[in-house]
Amino acid sequence: MLVGCQFSLYPMTDRYINVILGSVSSLDERSDLRVSRDEISTLVVGSPQAIFDAVLDCFVVASQRAQGHLVLSAMFSQGCPGEPDDEICRPATPTQSAACTGVESAPLEPSGVEVSAQFAVLPLGDPGYMDIIYREIATVKSSPLQYRAKNFCTRIDGDARAVFAAMQHAFTSAAQDVGHVVVAATISTGSPSAKTQ
Amino acid sequence: MLVGCQFSLYPMTDRYINVILGSVSSLDERSDLRVSRDEISTLVVGSPQAIFDAVLDCFVVASQRAQGHLVLSAMFSQGCPGEPDDEICRPATPTQSAACTGVESAPLEPSGVEVSAQFAVLPLGDPGYMDIIYREIATVKSSPLQYRAKNFCTRIDGDARAVFAAMQHAFTSAAQDVGHVVVAATISTGSPSAKTQ
Repeated sequence: MLVGCQFSLYPMTDRYINVILGSVSSLDERSDLRVSRDEISTLVVGSPQAIFDAVLDCFVVASQRAQGHLVLSAMFSQGCPGEPDDEICRPATPTQSAACTGVESAPLEPSGVEVSAQFAVLPLGDPGYMDIIYREIATVKSSPLQYRAKNFCTRIDGDARAVFAAMQHAFTSAAQDVGHVVVAATISTGSPSAKTQ
Repeated sequence: MLVGCQFSLYPMTDRYINVILGSVSSLDERSDLRVSRDEISTLVVGSPQAIFDAVLDCFVVASQRAQGHLVLSAMFSQGCPGEPDDEICRPATPTQSAACTGVESAPLEPSGVEVSAQFAVLPLGDPGYMDIIYREIATVKSSPLQYRAKNFCTRIDGDARAVFAAMQHAFTSAAQDVGHVVVAATISTGSPSAKTQ
């Protein structure tokens, strides 16, 4: 089963090339991921834990290099039919996945990067999918993260590591009910805009 | 039925505030949209035609103002349960929708902005959703746009107006089969990266 993420970093600075290349170069050293890229996005394929860890690492490094406004756009996907199967993509068992999310388990070491994020968890192929979405939203609302309702997505604010853990939990939890799950996410830091919602 | 788009513009320049604000300000003058925003994204709600037109207009203006690398990230959504209903969101009839897409109809006036884009059409709640996705990919492949397969999404390159028309076609066509459709899209222009795929 293919598990992966297409993601892009957007540093709002004239130095964006340097920031982006310096933030994703370490991916090629990881043996637990398959990595490819084109001019739009970087693809990482591996276990859910490996891909969330890797994308978070890239985002944190990029935020340090950008020294200003930075946005990550990411589409995490698991089990999409029509994709090639691969050993590296074998998902963690449900027990392993739950243990990795950090939502119900021990407090996470903060990344030091405060973010505003929004994401949509989209379980495909199941007429009862809204029950899964409502359940995942309820889990987020019960977490220490700052929650706000938005149209079409869920907004959460807090430390980047906690935000990633919440998204990973929604992803792996939904994947226990349906074979194909997409999480579309936007994570922003350093925005000069007033927080209006 | 709520139809709308959460979108964000990412100009990779120190002048990003000026580029963004100058590109989205005209939205407030449109009477066919309901507009709101926070620090992460701008929400436009209206008919499918109005929202695709409005987001394209913002992107084209932003590309002229950015004078460099610019990315648009957008999530178009129709019929999400749990969202408030509104008269402004009544979708166009299937016939109107098909006539608006430009894929099978008369050639579109080019925007003058060449883009590389990737998008995923995600029909929710239907066990036969992959047939809808395959059908929409086939339509894109038969269009004059440059098509490339990617994991988890479909890449198309060409003039921004034709790319938007293709995405709108996929959105409105899928919405004739299921009540809830999401199109997650990334549109990039001016990237200095070599085209590697």
